[in-house]
Formats: sequence, structure tokens, C-alpha cells
Amino acid sequence: MRPNDRPLQATRPIKISRHYTKHAEGSVLVEFGDTKVLCNATLENSVPRFLKGQGQGWITAEYGMLPRSTNVRMQREAARGKQGGRTLEIQRLIGRSLRAMIDLTALGERTITVDCDVIQADGGTRTAAISGACVAVIDAINTLLANGDLKTNPIKGLVAAISVGIVDGTAVCDLEYVEDSAAETDMNVVMAEDGRMIEVQGTAEGEPFSHQELLQLLELAQGGIEQIFAVQRAALNDD
Amino acid sequence: MRPNDRPLQATRPIKISRHYTKHAEGSVLVEFGDTKVLCNATLENSVPRFLKGQGQGWITAEYGMLPRSTNVRMQREAARGKQGGRTLEIQRLIGRSLRAMIDLTALGERTITVDCDVIQADGGTRTAAISGACVAVIDAINTLLANGDLKTNPIKGLVAAISVGIVDGTAVCDLEYVEDSAAETDMNVVMAEDGRMIEVQGTAEGEPFSHQELLQLLELAQGGIEQIFAVQRAALNDD
Amino acid sequence: MRPNDRPLQATRPIKISRHYTKHAEGSVLVEFGDTKVLCNATLENSVPRFLKGQGQGWITAEYGMLPRSTNVRMQREAARGKQGGRTLEIQRLIGRSLRAMIDLTALGERTITVDCDVIQADGGTRTAAISGACVAVIDAINTLLANGDLKTNPIKGLVAAISVGIVDGTAVCDLEYVEDSAAETDMNVVMAEDGRMIEVQGTAEGEPFSHQELLQLLELAQGGIEQIFAVQRAALNDD
Amino acid sequence: MRPNDRPLQATRPIKISRHYTKHAEGSVLVEFGDTKVLCNATLENSVPRFLKGQGQGWITAEYGMLPRSTNVRMQREAARGKQGGRTLEIQRLIGRSLRAMIDLTALGERTITVDCDVIQADGGTRTAAISGACVAVIDAINTLLANGDLKTNPIKGLVAAISVGIVDGTAVCDLEYVEDSAAETDMNVVMAEDGRMIEVQGTAEGEPFSHQELLQLLELAQGGIEQIFAVQRAALNDD
Amino acid sequence: MRPNDRPLQATRPIKISRHYTKHAEGSVLVEFGDTKVLCNATLENSVPRFLKGQGQGWITAEYGMLPRSTNVRMQREAARGKQGGRTLEIQRLIGRSLRAMIDLTALGERTITVDCDVIQADGGTRTAAISGACVAVIDAINTLLANGDLKTNPIKGLVAAISVGIVDGTAVCDLEYVEDSAAETDMNVVMAEDGRMIEVQGTAEGEPFSHQELLQLLELAQGGIEQIFAVQRAALNDD
Amino acid sequence: MRPNDRPLQATRPIKISRHYTKHAEGSVLVEFGDTKVLCNATLENSVPRFLKGQGQGWITAEYGMLPRSTNVRMQREAARGKQGGRTLEIQRLIGRSLRAMIDLTALGERTITVDCDVIQADGGTRTAAISGACVAVIDAINTLLANGDLKTNPIKGLVAAISVGIVDGTAVCDLEYVEDSAAETDMNVVMAEDGRMIEVQGTAEGEPFSHQELLQLLELAQGGIEQIFAVQRAALNDD
Repeated sequence: MRPNDRPLQATRPIKISRHYTKHAEGSVLVEFGDTKVLCNATLENSVPRFLKGQGQGWITAEYGMLPRSTNVRMQREAARGKQGGRTLEIQRLIGRSLRAMIDLTALGERTITVDCDVIQADGGTRTAAISGACVAVIDAINTLLANGDLKTNPIKGLVAAISVGIVDGTAVCDLEYVEDSAAETDMNVVMAEDGRMIEVQGTAEGEPFSHQELLQLLELAQGGIEQIFAVQRAALNDD
Repeated sequence: MRPNDRPLQATRPIKISRHYTKHAEGSVLVEFGDTKVLCNATLENSVPRFLKGQGQGWITAEYGMLPRSTNVRMQREAARGKQGGRTLEIQRLIGRSLRAMIDLTALGERTITVDCDVIQADGGTRTAAISGACVAVIDAINTLLANGDLKTNPIKGLVAAISVGIVDGTAVCDLEYVEDSAAETDMNVVMAEDGRMIEVQGTAEGEPFSHQELLQLLELAQGGIEQIFAVQRAALNDD
Repeated sequence: MRPNDRPLQATRPIKISRHYTKHAEGSVLVEFGDTKVLCNATLENSVPRFLKGQGQGWITAEYGMLPRSTNVRMQREAARGKQGGRTLEIQRLIGRSLRAMIDLTALGERTITVDCDVIQADGGTRTAAISGACVAVIDAINTLLANGDLKTNPIKGLVAAISVGIVDGTAVCDLEYVEDSAAETDMNVVMAEDGRMIEVQGTAEGEPFSHQELLQLLELAQGGIEQIFAVQRAALNDD
Repeated sequence: MRPNDRPLQATRPIKISRHYTKHAEGSVLVEFGDTKVLCNATLENSVPRFLKGQGQGWITAEYGMLPRSTNVRMQREAARGKQGGRTLEIQRLIGRSLRAMIDLTALGERTITVDCDVIQADGGTRTAAISGACVAVIDAINTLLANGDLKTNPIKGLVAAISVGIVDGTAVCDLEYVEDSAAETDMNVVMAEDGRMIEVQGTAEGEPFSHQELLQLLELAQGGIEQIFAVQRAALNDD
Repeated sequence: MRPNDRPLQATRPIKISRHYTKHAEGSVLVEFGDTKVLCNATLENSVPRFLKGQGQGWITAEYGMLPRSTNVRMQREAARGKQGGRTLEIQRLIGRSLRAMIDLTALGERTITVDCDVIQADGGTRTAAISGACVAVIDAINTLLANGDLKTNPIKGLVAAISVGIVDGTAVCDLEYVEDSAAETDMNVVMAEDGRMIEVQGTAEGEPFSHQELLQLLELAQGGIEQIFAVQRAALNDD
Repeated sequence: MRPNDRPLQATRPIKISRHYTKHAEGSVLVEFGDTKVLCNATLENSVPRFLKGQGQGWITAEYGMLPRSTNVRMQREAARGKQGGRTLEIQRLIGRSLRAMIDLTALGERTITVDCDVIQADGGTRTAAISGACVAVIDAINTLLANGDLKTNPIKGLVAAISVGIVDGTAVCDLEYVEDSAAETDMNVVMAEDGRMIEVQGTAEGEPFSHQELLQLLELAQGGIEQIFAVQRAALNDD
């Protein structure tokens, strides 16, 4: 039995609030149940040094957790003097996922930086961040299109992500924290709007997982991501 | 003329929302107009090394700005690898202000850490943080009193803070960003509930200020802080 | 056509040399073609703080590349003052993979640290590192068993890893550098000796990948890993 | 009764020695009793990046304490790998104070960096540093005027600073260490030569302070700073 | 009696293997008995900022020990976040020694960086590194001469280094680890091919050493270095 | 011709001022001509972790240059966030030299830390630091002997150091900055009171140096160090 009698294949209630803060070109608060992540997209008319003069843009992400977004307070990374391995791994994943949704050449020599800051954590912060950041990037790009600064729309489609896993021998969709910490296998799946995959990261925390279990998890992920696409589309249509 | 025709001695609309996130022992979102700061108080049953065995508690604060809480994105301090001088200065100020409201011996060997994270900045983030953190600390201490973990209430009274300044030769209360960046003199005042002062920090950004101007600013601060105390009391009564 | 006319499903020549340096309890040079990684396992009779007194052991890994292991010299991480995100991500992956092959309770309060240092890089350094480190860990544990310091063998089985990917629309096994840098999809698979998976990390560098392609890649990985298991077993039998 | 029967409103003996070291364009040893701070001003014909091309100069300060300038040895900040919050706060204060005495446009695209290093500490190091640095800056600017590199004198007037505080309920001027560590309220005041204020920083270390006490402290500060101006003028006349 | 009945004036077996890895312009594995150091020379067509536009080149070195190159595992410097004092001292010594063998003006605006990484340590790693790096630098320069990128050979001659010391009152040549850790005096000597000295660094670890002992050590060093020159020449002739 | 017609074998005027600051257990300002170094010795009743429980003491040193002790301002190491290689090398040398003058077992489980801070630099700061620190250590130990905290005097004798070098083909003693920066060979010699050597560090900056030149330099060093011993003895007798 899952918390709140949630069915195995169901996601938590997902909510995407646009224009959440006033300064960013795209600002989205994404909620997957009690997990809340603020995704702010910033536009800059320049590219990192390694891309200078190549006629293409760049999309990158940074991730952080407020120290008390978690049940036990975590040390502030700015005070510790460095970002941990988990943080770097997650922000690299978010960046790669977002780059897959954009034609970087059509974007031109611009950089979009998406800051994903976890306000409240209850499992699945990285997949919520990707799903919310997708909408923030679209809002930022829409300001360029609206201004006439971009002639061609560089957006190839939506991107969304979900965590799935095996808990007590059962495959479930969109793990919340109590499930995540008990899971034998944990898998994050990032998908493009056409149903193809951008990232699959499956990890056996305890027992290894079989080929059969992998297929089951992918199927659950596919279903969950379809629900997220629907929420993203609804949010974007709500202007 | 101030933005929105605000009278010289008026604060912006001030709002204090308690229980804003679910994990922290005290969690307050404080808003001074468009400035929004999340203040999460964490209780720990231990004290820093320099206080071990002295039979008293400690209150400390950390401060951060989300990178895009500002109009131009600021570099993430965790990525830069250190907290800047402004950040350290502000979090030291918040900590000193909060310690002034508590009898640390009555608190016992406990530490309260208040994380003040700026979600959206529009001037006065440090004074908003102090005013919000005060309520978060009280909520955290009330859990100790409710549990019977504390016999004596260590709270000596409220603490609140406001920024005042001289803009275009005129003294004004609760500066928002456009005023702050144009101010000749900027002063932050932290006050105890009995009207006495905990901190006064006046800085001439351009021209020095006279004794007369200092007195004017203190009077404006006193008026503004009374308004904050009222909002704090209303929020605390609303259970 | 692959370099050296290598068939699509073939790995490069794989070589595992044990007792490569004299100080470490387990010391393995692993070669996948021109990729050469030195894996030194160190035994310590203590555990990290977070595991103290829990009656179990720990296995962790560190990873580094010699600055000129690559075609263009990379900055030395010790000189830069921090390990990059890629390094942290890889060493976390190696550690997780190795922990999956050991019963940590049977290991007792001991730590095995495996240093994986890339002497020469030509693609697939992380999967080579896992495959070599597995043998170094076994050598280190065998010294404990030989001394009588351990009564029960904590080894659950071998672990090995391979990279597979889609290059020019074709799925290939064990990518070397020129293939890796041209791959549309890159997948690292870590497997236990019973054929179940420990990690699957698939990333679309260009186009997303389909469910069908994922299955193809997993099949190639399975075949490649069987070859590595054979090399590991031969090396371990050669005393 | 104060140490050495010092009257409440009296400063310690103040001494300013110019040309203290031979390399710096301005080099001053300032002594407030046993507090000794070496202030070296360095001239450079460039400005920090954020001021490039704006036709104005910059004045900045750095502050440090020799590890054994204090009664108990402090860790060397260079060895610790970072400057503490107190250090950053003080050097920001010194820099702001010095900028208030100079017309930065008249200075032209030049930077003056003042290094304030505490040789021996006995309370009031930051206010001594400001008072000494003022003279070092004037010496540095005078070399520019003497060379004909500057046509207009950018100096608007002297700046000086003093600490005042409430010890055992009594307001006193220029606190030495034993007073400072026992003070209920501690206030640093920085003044321009015309008697207007550049900075006022009052902090209640124990009890909050009243409006009346604030006025008393400001009066003491005014008196003390007049004495410093006299010493500065005498030192500058002594060529 | 020395380990393995080695005569007092004898070096350990010395071996220099060129072209050890495939990417570097010069790649040498140098072995002094069980001490093994990989020296990779990298050529770049630019110079550090402080030499820009001066028409001369630069040679620099970096040094590192693999964490388990030693009997007890050392912390990885990249993980610790900084290079230790011993590392910096050694890499400065290697750089100075190599610059002494090259006419930097004849080299032109190029930099050669030699990475010396200790694979296995058994005493004398810095002197082995210098002796091996000399050959790696020559190989790198020979590629420039062969390509016609350099018209004049900038090589002034070989450079080699050895450690000598006083162990149990007796002067010995080329100390291995057990001798080194018991030595009363330890001296590293770097010599040019003409027999003149580039560096002499003698340190009394226990008792100070006399003028007579210094002369004895220098004589032993001279003899040992002649043997290294012979190995270097043989290696370079073996193409 | 040397500056000020100084004879080749002469040191600059050497001055040792004891009790220079009031807090340290030993506080010496040492001057070699225009080179001025403040050496403060701190006593602590504990030892570093690696010596705990071994019944012996420790002596260590830290070295720093005030940013404008030099002709061109150097970046403050505390602001840069790390000590440079030269600094670490020098403080290691000072520490080794001082440990050679003390019977660490007789010192008991105590640490003496000597902070050597360069107030003004004109060549030879490290050798001046050693020569001054020797006296500061003796003053610190004498307070222990005077208190009866130490029964046996752990001091084995004085230690002093000088730089010698070859400038324009001529060997000279105690190089000042203009000589140092033009020297072909630079040698620092640290000697015990009995005339034996503790450290010899000779470096060819340009041309290598011959055996004959080495002998000449050692003779000059011996003569210079005798002069320093005389100044040290005079300072210590002056109570």
C-alpha cells in the first residue's frame, strides 16, 4: 500500500505555476506533491568561452536545496565552500535534458541559465526540476520570439522527467521520500515529447534488477511522463 | 514622489505567513512589498564547540539570495565557492539581532539556526529577514514549550528591523530597490519591542549626513518598526 | 566501419594485470584497448563517521585522470583546487557498483578505498575502472581471508561494466574515443555476475533514443560484459 | 574608573607616524594607545573591471591582523584559506569611509588600495585603521599632485573614526580591549572634517540602548574625532 | 649494510622507458629501483601571461603522487582541495632544474609543461622525476626540430639529479625509502652535463652536518649522476 | 662595487629588538639593512595530533609578507584564498631550522609557533626570519624556565642563517634585493652555533655553479653567520 492509497502507476498531484517571481525571463514553481522547486530561467546575450564564435547558443542549469528544504537541515553549500557531488550530478543532468529540447543553432549566441532551487523536498526533486525548467525555458524563449529577437522558434518539443522504482518488490511511479529511501531500485527517466528517451538512469540501491523489471519501470515512467506533459501543456495554454 | 504615491513615513504592505514549509520547526515567508524572504528556523539539541558545557544556548543565522532573486542574475555563492562579504555581514547582523530577543541561558544547550533565503529581492532584504526570522524563532521555541522540553519561556520580546534613508534630500521609510540605489544615506535600524535599539547602521553612500538628519531617520524607523510589530503580533495570534 | 575493422558487438582487447604496484592490498592495471586505468585498493580497519558502530563495512572509490592521459592536456584537479563534476559523478558510480558486489555486514567495520587513476584515456575509462576495481577489491579481501581476519567471504560475485552507444545510427559495443565523441547515444551498463543490472545510464547526446534502440544497446552490453567476466575470472585464476 | 584613570571623554594617546615603510606611496603607523596599525597606500594607474572606461577612480582597503597581534593567537587567514566575516566587514567599512573623502572623478582612472595590518591589537583597530589610512591616502595623492600627474586636488577633507560605548552603564570614548569586551553597547562612528557623519554603527552586545544613550555616545564620538583630526593635521604639517 | 648489499656509492638499477603513453609529446617512465615516476611533457604554443611578448619560452612542472603510491595511503590532493607544501616545493624544484637545461629564448614563445606523477614510491621521487623529465623534454623538443618548427636546438645539455645522505653515520648514494626515513642528513643534488651544479639542497633531519660530510656527499652525488647521464644517453640513442 | 660600497664579505647592519609587541611570549623585530621581519613566538600546552602522547614537543613556523612590504604590491594571500608555493617552502624551512636548535623531548608536550611577518622586504627575508625567530623562541622558552614549568633547558644552541650568492661573477655575502634579483647563484645557509650546517640550499638562477664556487660561498656564509651569532648573543644579554 502506498501513502495516501496512491495507485502504483499514479503520480502525485502535479502543479506548475508560471510567472512565480518577477525578475526572471521564465519563472516556474513546480510541485510534485510536497516537493516544490522554483525554476528561474535567465537569458543572456552571450555564450560561454568554449562556444564563442560558433554561431550557437547554450543552455545550462544550476541546482540547490535550501538548507531546511529537507527533514534534517543540510549544511549550506555556499558556507561549506563547494557544491557536493550529488548537486553537480543533478545540475549536469538538468542541463543535458534541457539542451535536448532546443535547437541550439536556432537559439543563436545566447545562453539560458536555469536555476532550480528546492524550496521543499519530498523525493523526486531532480525530475520535478527538469519538468518545471522546461516550462521556464519556453517562457524565456517566448519573450525573445515576442520581441522579434528570434525569427525561428528553436523549441523542438517538451521534455519531462519522472522517477520510478521498485519498493518492496513492486514497481511504482513517482516515488515520494519515504518510498525513495526504501527503494531497492531507483530510476530516473527523461523523455522528449515524441516518447523517445533523453536519459535513463537506473540504480540498484540494494539488489540488482532484472531485464524484466527494467521494462516494467520504463512502462511506468512512460505513463507518468504523459501526465506531466499534460500539466505542462495546460500551464502553457493558460496565459 | 515615491513609487505608488507612498507617503514618506509609510512602509510597503507587510505580510508574514507562518508554517510556509513543512519540515522546519519555524517557517515564515515574510513580504515587504515585492521583497520576499523565506525564514526557516531549525532546532538542534547541541551548541557550537565554543559554548560547550556553559549551560547556555545559541542562535545563529545564514543568509542567501537565490541567483535570480534580483533583476540581474547574481553568481550562485555555492558555485563560486564562497560567501561574499555582504552575505557574511548580513548573516552576522541577523544572528546578533535574534540573540538580543532571547535569554540564552533559559534556552539551555540548544542551537536555533535560521536560514533566511531571499526568493525575490526589491530592497530591504536584511531587515525583512530579521522581522520574519523573529517569528520563525518564536514558533520553534513554542514547539519546545508545548512539548514540555522547556520550562521557562526564554523569549524576551519581539525584534523587528527597517531600512530608512535619504533620497533626493528627503528622509523616507522602508526603501524599495529604486530608492535604495539612489539613496544618499541608508540606515538599517533593529529595535526591541520596548523601543530600545539593538543595531543602528547608517551609511553615507554619497554626501555625509548631519546630526539632524540622523534624528529624522531614527524617528521614521521607530514608526515603521511599530507597524512591523503589529504585523508580527497579528501573525502570531493567528493559530 | 569501426576503427581496426572491429565488429559491432566486439570489445577491444581487454587485459587485467594484477599486483601491478607493490604497496596496495589490491593493485590492478586494466586495459580496454588503449585505455589504461590503475586501480589500487586500500584496506583500513575503520569506517567513515556516518557508519561508526553499525557493524558494517564500506567501499568507496576515487577517480582521477593524469593531466596528459588525454590528447589535449587537462588541468590538474589538485592544482585547480577541486574535483570537477564529471570526476565526482564517476567516482560515485564506481563506489556504488563495487558496494553491490559485497555483503557489507560480512565485511565488518572495514573500509576499502579504490583509487582509479587513468594513465591513458581512449574512451570508456569509467567502465574499465569498474571492471578493474572489482578484481582489486577481490585481491584485497583475499588477503583478509588468507590472514584469517575474515571468517566469511563477503564477495557476492563479480561486477563488470561496459559502454555501448549509437554511432552513425548503428549500435556498437565498447566505444573508443573517436566513436564516443561522435555517438548520438551513449550508455554505460554495470552488471552483476548473475546477469542482473546494477546501473544503467543512457544519455542522448544528440537525438533521443527509442525503446527499441535501448533494447539493442542492452543486448550489446550483456554480450560485452560476459567477455569482461571471462577476463576477470582468468586473471583471478592466474596466481 | 577607567584603566589608567582615563577620563570618560578622553581618547588614548594617539600617534601618527608617516613614511613608516619605504616602498608604499603612503605609509602610516597609527597608534591609539597599545593598538598599532600599519596603513600602506598603493597607487595603481588602472581601475577594477566594473569601473573601466567611466572616467573615475576607486579607493579600496584590505585589513588583516597578524596572528599574534592579539592576546591569544588567531589562526592566520591565509593558512585557513579565507578571510573571516569580521575581516571582510571591516575592510568594506574602511573602503567606504575613505571613498567619502575623495572626489573619485577628480582622481581619474586610478586605484588606491590601502592595506591596514594590525601589528598589535588593544581595541579599536578598525577606527584606528580608518584614521591612519586617511593620512596614507593623502600622502599617496600628494605624490600625484607633486609629480603633476593630477591637476586638481581630489581630497574633500579629512576622515576619522572612533569607537565609543557603554561600559557598566557609563558612556566612554575610545574603548580599549578590556572595556570593549565588557561593553553593553559598542558604537563606531566615522566622521568627515565638517562634522557630518559617514558611518554610524551601534550594536547592543547585551541590553538594547535607548535614544538618550545614542545621543550621549554621538557626543562623545564627536569630541574624540576632533582630537584625531588635530593629530592628523599635525602629522601632515610635519614634513 | 644497505638493503640488497648495495655498495655505498651505487645507485639502484635505473631504467628510462620512452614513449610510455601515446598522447604526450614526450612520455617517459623512469624507475630508480622500486620508485616509478611517469613524466609526460606537453607542448603549447603560448606562454604564461608574465612572459607575453618577451620572445622567450617557459618550462614548468607539476608533481603528484597517486594516493596509494606509498605504503600508507595518502589523501588525494584533488579531493583535499589543495596541493601540499611538499608538492609545491618539489614541482618548483623540477621546473627550475629543467629550465637550466634549455635556452628559453631559442625555444621561442612556447611552454613545455611536464607532469611528473609518482606511480610507485620508494624514496627519491623528486630526483627520479627530474632525471626522467629531462628526457621527456628532449623528446618534446625533438618533435619541434623534426617538424621544422624550431630552427635552432635550444637544448644546452642533460640534467640529472640524485639524493645522497648520511645514514647511521655513513654517507650513501641514492637512498631508498627505508634509508631515507632513517637518514640524519638528506641531500638532493641536481647537476648539468658539464658537472656543474644547478641545485644543492642539504637538510639535517637530526644532527647538523659538517663541512667534511658535505664534501663527501657531493662526491657521491657526482658519481651517481654520471650513472644517470649514461642511462639517459642510452635511452635517447635507442630510437 | 656593491651598494653603499659594502665589502664582499660584509653583512648589512643587523639589529635585533626584543619585546617588540606585548602579547607574544617571544617577540623580536629583526632587521638586516632595510629588511624588517617581525617574529612572534606563541607557546601552547599541546601538540599537533600526529605527536599526541609521544612525550615530545613541536616547533613550527608561519611566514607572510605584508602586501606592500615589497616594491610592487603583492596580492594578499588571505584574499587569494591560499598561501603560495614560495610561502609554504619558506615556512617549512624556518620550522626545520628552529627544530634543530631544540631538544623536543626536553620541551615536553608543548608547541611553539613562530609567526614571521615581513614588514619591509629588501632581500634575505627568510634568513632574517630564521635569525630573529631563534631569539623569539629562546625568549618564549625562558618564560617557561622562569616559571618553573620546565626543569631542563631544551635549547641546544643558537641557529642563524644568511644568504650568499654570485653576482656578476663575484661571490658576495648577505644579498640585498638589487643583488638578489641579479644573482646567477643564490644560496641560503642555516648553521648551528657549533659551525655545523642545518640547511644548505644553493640554486643556479642562470649559469650552473662549480664546486669551487660552492666552497667560496660556504666560506662567506660562515663568516656572515658568525656576525649574526654575535648580534643574537648581545641582544639576549641585554635584559
